[in-house]
Amino acid sequence: MLAKEMDAYISGGSAVRAMFEEGTRLAAIYGRENVYDFSLGNPNIPAPAALNDAIRAVLDEEESTFVHGYMTNAGYPDVRLAVAEDLNRRFGTAYTDANLLMTVGAAGGMNIILRTLLDPGDEVLVFAPYFSEYNFYVRGAGGVIRPIPADPATFQPDPEALRAAVTPRTKALIVNNPNNPTGVVYSEETLRAVASVLTERAEAVGHAIYIISDEPYRELVYDGAVVSWIPNLYPNTVVCYSWSKSLSIPGERLGYLCIPDACEDFPVIFDAAVVVSRALGFVNAPSLIQRAVKRVLSAQTDIAAYDRNRRALYDGLTALGFRTARPEGAFYLWVQTPGGDDVAFAAKAAEHRILTVRGSGFGCGGYVRLAYCVSHDMILRSMDAWKDLAKEYNLF
Amino acid sequence: MLAKEMDAYISGGSAVRAMFEEGTRLAAIYGRENVYDFSLGNPNIPAPAALNDAIRAVLDEEESTFVHGYMTNAGYPDVRLAVAEDLNRRFGTAYTDANLLMTVGAAGGMNIILRTLLDPGDEVLVFAPYFSEYNFYVRGAGGVIRPIPADPATFQPDPEALRAAVTPRTKALIVNNPNNPTGVVYSEETLRAVASVLTERAEAVGHAIYIISDEPYRELVYDGAVVSWIPNLYPNTVVCYSWSKSLSIPGERLGYLCIPDACEDFPVIFDAAVVVSRALGFVNAPSLIQRAVKRVLSAQTDIAAYDRNRRALYDGLTALGFRTARPEGAFYLWVQTPGGDDVAFAAKAAEHRILTVRGSGFGCGGYVRLAYCVSHDMILRSMDAWKDLAKEYNLF
Repeated sequence: MLAKEMDAYISGGSAVRAMFEEGTRLAAIYGRENVYDFSLGNPNIPAPAALNDAIRAVLDEEESTFVHGYMTNAGYPDVRLAVAEDLNRRFGTAYTDANLLMTVGAAGGMNIILRTLLDPGDEVLVFAPYFSEYNFYVRGAGGVIRPIPADPATFQPDPEALRAAVTPRTKALIVNNPNNPTGVVYSEETLRAVASVLTERAEAVGHAIYIISDEPYRELVYDGAVVSWIPNLYPNTVVCYSWSKSLSIPGERLGYLCIPDACEDFPVIFDAAVVVSRALGFVNAPSLIQRAVKRVLSAQTDIAAYDRNRRALYDGLTALGFRTARPEGAFYLWVQTPGGDDVAFAAKAAEHRILTVRGSGFGCGGYVRLAYCVSHDMILRSMDAWKDLAKEYNLF
Repeated sequence: MLAKEMDAYISGGSAVRAMFEEGTRLAAIYGRENVYDFSLGNPNIPAPAALNDAIRAVLDEEESTFVHGYMTNAGYPDVRLAVAEDLNRRFGTAYTDANLLMTVGAAGGMNIILRTLLDPGDEVLVFAPYFSEYNFYVRGAGGVIRPIPADPATFQPDPEALRAAVTPRTKALIVNNPNNPTGVVYSEETLRAVASVLTERAEAVGHAIYIISDEPYRELVYDGAVVSWIPNLYPNTVVCYSWSKSLSIPGERLGYLCIPDACEDFPVIFDAAVVVSRALGFVNAPSLIQRAVKRVLSAQTDIAAYDRNRRALYDGLTALGFRTARPEGAFYLWVQTPGGDDVAFAAKAAEHRILTVRGSGFGCGGYVRLAYCVSHDMILRSMDAWKDLAKEYNLF
């Protein structure tokens, strides 16, 4: 009696569960400490102490019906203004609370903006490889997702492939930078080329094409890499953010949509998005955490531990002959699978008690994703297993 | 460039905003204390002190990556088990964590279960008058909402009208008890009759029909009224709950779906609902508040203040000749509009600085809804205005 579409949903859910169960099975046999689980993108660094202090301060200083009560669906105006001013300081913009819509995480924001924009059959472009949940989000909004083939030399967006992919039904392009699953940070030069192609193609097809910039990993970059603010390069951009990674609070579900005045159909698009937030059942972003995050906007998780993990894993694997995309952001390493068959490689890795996510799940076979938001010790302990795996593939 | 459907969404949003703006306009002219705003269902009683204490205790005693981190999409297993055991104590059931899915409020839960169940064109029945957001939820899930005409004598569900409304496309019946907007509590006798009709009609049409029981007001009842646990009367029932009203935390967005083993297609329906929660962008219910509410499951907002308001408003209005449905639950009074035209009445009331919500917005003209989750003093101060309004309609 379930919706027929649920068949696809449940099989999608089972793939994740199967990996989880594989880990549990291996841990039961070999002990948890002898299973090297690189599959989960769950921050392992605690939230900054300032956050919990801020929560306590909100409870002590602000009134209960205000802290725990309904506010306007877009979020507390003072919180939205504080976020806008923080962006203005960093990116030279001139946003106000009228541009900020607080959301239930980035996933909530993505669903809201897609539902706001898409008519049935509208196409949404995305550069492969890409976060697989986008398939759900676009389909749920009635759209059709159109992956743009990857450039395996750099895993930067390929502007010429973008040019070829735009059709009269193209409504939006999702950009995810820093990228999940590759860990690549898109260069400003590449993004300018993307903006240029999109401007030209939008004119050719005779209507606006939005960029939806999904940036939950914006603050997680290394080696001085710079994450460009895309609305400054392409005005018709909606930014989708989450504090899940920058404050290590993924369970709290807090993020925002930034919809600049320069967006096509502003401010109607903002008002529509607010109503869509109600219609989808979000109603508003969780209240207490909104009030607390306002007090710690300049705080951030100490990412030195991620950086240390990144270096250890990257140095260790490349020394063994593995090849990866240039890892400058997020907490992922994107490893080319020797032999080219990522499903076979992931299965072989599991025999060595190494859990990975196969690239075909991100629309790009021949690679696996490793999440290094894990204990440093686990990375060190895993190296013998990686060495055995490398030997099996004759990498050295 | 927005989705064409947004036209309907935005006009729906504007009706709410128009009322809000009317209140702001009147307050600017007459002073906030001289505007009697009965339009908003926003709890005005603070959360129990035990809740904030529980939040502090969670922060002090539990580990940051656990409290603020991802958990399984269905919610923390220990929280789900605690909720199940609380229900078992109260209703003689035998639920476990496998029956409980923590949600982003009741609105989140409703969206999830509807999306899980409905194929395009499936029909969802609801007894009028009904919470107008159901229109969004059902349409967003691809369904068609079919209101069942009210029984204006009692505003109890009318089993015979239900019988006539079931078609081969009927997939579910939404029951909202205690009811928004009427404040009526459905009697167990009526609900048994509803269950009997639905069982018979499900057999006649040859497939299961679910009850979706939306119960955010379950704990807000007066005069010893009893809210039946519908799964005990009709096994194929999914319960949708929120702590928004019972703990006065509507901004926090915390609720659950209870999907009993006896539900058609259990446990597949549960697994599908979990994936739908991800697909819609909820991912999981907010984490810290889950952990805190586990510690205060037996706490409750002190509803004596609502009861006092209810009596004052009911006694005051009936003494002036107004007629209302029997108000035993929630925090609403459902007042018949003299002359029958609720739009004209609401406009006339606004001239007396009384803000109401017209019944036609709930699919049932000829009535207005008054929310009495307001200061007691405002109710007392409003009585002269009500008297003037009653005089205009020659009620006494």
